[in-house]
Amino acid sequence: MNSECLVCQAKTINHIANKFGSDKKATAKFKEEANYIVANSQSLSTPYSGLLLHRLAKRIFKTENLYANEKLKANKLLHLNYSYWKSLVSNSDNPMHVAAKLAVIGNIIDYGAHSVPDDILSEINHLLEKEFALNESEEMFEAINNAKTVLYLGDNAGEIVFDKLFIETLNHPNLTFVVRGEPIINDVTYEDSHFVQMEDVCKVISNGHDAPSTLLENCSSELQKLYRDADVVISKGQGNLEGLLDEKRNKLFFMLMAKCDLIAGKLGVKKKDLVIKQNKK
Amino acid sequence: MNSECLVCQAKTINHIANKFGSDKKATAKFKEEANYIVANSQSLSTPYSGLLLHRLAKRIFKTENLYANEKLKANKLLHLNYSYWKSLVSNSDNPMHVAAKLAVIGNIIDYGAHSVPDDILSEINHLLEKEFALNESEEMFEAINNAKTVLYLGDNAGEIVFDKLFIETLNHPNLTFVVRGEPIINDVTYEDSHFVQMEDVCKVISNGHDAPSTLLENCSSELQKLYRDADVVISKGQGNLEGLLDEKRNKLFFMLMAKCDLIAGKLGVKKKDLVIKQNKK
Repeated sequence: MNSECLVCQAKTINHIANKFGSDKKATAKFKEEANYIVANSQSLSTPYSGLLLHRLAKRIFKTENLYANEKLKANKLLHLNYSYWKSLVSNSDNPMHVAAKLAVIGNIIDYGAHSVPDDILSEINHLLEKEFALNESEEMFEAINNAKTVLYLGDNAGEIVFDKLFIETLNHPNLTFVVRGEPIINDVTYEDSHFVQMEDVCKVISNGHDAPSTLLENCSSELQKLYRDADVVISKGQGNLEGLLDEKRNKLFFMLMAKCDLIAGKLGVKKKDLVIKQNKK
Repeated sequence: MNSECLVCQAKTINHIANKFGSDKKATAKFKEEANYIVANSQSLSTPYSGLLLHRLAKRIFKTENLYANEKLKANKLLHLNYSYWKSLVSNSDNPMHVAAKLAVIGNIIDYGAHSVPDDILSEINHLLEKEFALNESEEMFEAINNAKTVLYLGDNAGEIVFDKLFIETLNHPNLTFVVRGEPIINDVTYEDSHFVQMEDVCKVISNGHDAPSTLLENCSSELQKLYRDADVVISKGQGNLEGLLDEKRNKLFFMLMAKCDLIAGKLGVKKKDLVIKQNKK
C-alpha cells in the first residue's frame, strides 16, 4: 500500500469514528485496532485494507450496513428524476455518449475517504459540460456491439441510477450487472439494484465478497467464471480499478472519475478528471 | 511473517475447512479469501494473521465459538481430576515447582495448527518426568514474592485448570488472570474461567481483544494500564510470547511449551521443550 493511501485510510478511520463514535470505549477500541491494521498492512492492497477497516467497524459498532442512510438518500435523490435524466439522454445528439458520461459522473458520490458535494444535482449538470480527459468510449461501444456477453461491475449507490440509464441505453441482450456480496461503504448491493429496478434492464448478480473493489480471487467462483467468459468487462469506479489495474484480459474498460492524485497519475490524468479507458494488455 | 509461519497458517486453513466445510460453497469462499490473507500478510504479525483467518471463519461459517466443544471437553477432562492434581502438587517436595511445571505442561492442549495428543492424561504424566530445557522459575518466584501486583496472561482451555492450580499454590494476594475478549481457537474466555471457578483464587479480566496472543496496542486501555503497572507479568503459551517477544519491560516471564522450530530456535531450545524464561530486557 502506498503512503498516500495510508493518509486516506487514516481519514477513513476518523470519518468512521466520528460517525459511529458515541460509545467512547468502543471508539477507542476501533481506533487502536484500525491504526494497527493501517500501520501493518504495507503488503496488503488498498481495497483489502479498506475492507478490514470496515469489517472492524461493523464488528465493533455492531452495525452491518454502516452507510444505509446515505445510500438510500443518494438512490432516492437520483432515482426521483430518472425520467428527466432519461430525457436528457434521449434528446441529445449522441445518447450513448451522454449516458456514458452520466454513468462516469455518478462516480462523484462516495462516502469513503472522499467527500460528497452538498448539491449533487448542480454538480452533475456542471460536470456534464466537462470533457473527458481520457475517452476510449468508441472502442468500448464497438467492443460491446460485437460482444455476446457483457459483465458490468457496479460501484456505488446513487451512481447505480446512472448505471441503469446507461445499461438501458446500451440495450445489450446479455449484460450482467454485479453488486457487492455485503454492504461496504456506500457500494451497491442487491438492495440498491432492487431500489432502482435494475432487474428490469439486465441480469443482476452478487460478486460474493465485501471488498470496496473487485478482488477477483476472493469473489465467488460464479463471478470468476463470468469474468473469464465475458466478451467485454466494464469496471465502474476507482475501487474496482484498484483491484483490476494489473489485469491482462482483453476488452476490459474502466469508467471512473479519478479520485486521488495517485490513481490520476497512474492513468496520466488529473484528480477529478473523467475517464473511459481500456486496460493495458 | 516468517515462511515457516506461512506453512502453519496453511495448515490452519485446511483444519478449519475440514472441520466446518460441510457447505462446499462457503468452504470455497473461505479458502479463497484465507489464502489471499496468508499470501498477502508478510508485514502482519503471525498472531494477527491468525486472528484474521479465524474472524473470516466465524463470518463465513456463521459460528462465533469455533472450538466450543473442544474447549469444554478439555476443561472437563482436566477439571474432573482437580483434587488429584492438587494432591500431586501438595504431596510433592516442591509444590511450587510441580504446580509451575503442570501449568507449562497444560500448554500441550492446542487446537490451532498443532495437534492434541489422544491420551492427554498419560501425556501429562509422561511430561512431568521431563526436565525444563530452560528454567528461570527461581527468578520468577522471587519476583512474585516481592511483587505487590501480578498480571497473569491466560492461554488455552484445559490448560486453565493447571493455571488455577498454580495460582492457588502461589497464593498471591493481588494477582489478576487475563482471558481473551472473544473466542479465538481454544483460547480462554470468561466462559472457561467461570467453568474452572478461577474467580475463587484471583481476579479475572478480559483483555478486550480476540487475537490468539496479547497484542497490547489492540487490547483494552484497562488491560494496557494493568500491564504497565503490574510488578510482574506472567505470559502463558507460545501465542502470548509471539505478541510480547520484543517487549522491553521488567519482570516479564514466559511459561510455555515451544510448539515449533522457529520459536524453539528463538528461545535456544528444541520443539516440545518446557520453558520458564524471563524476557530479554
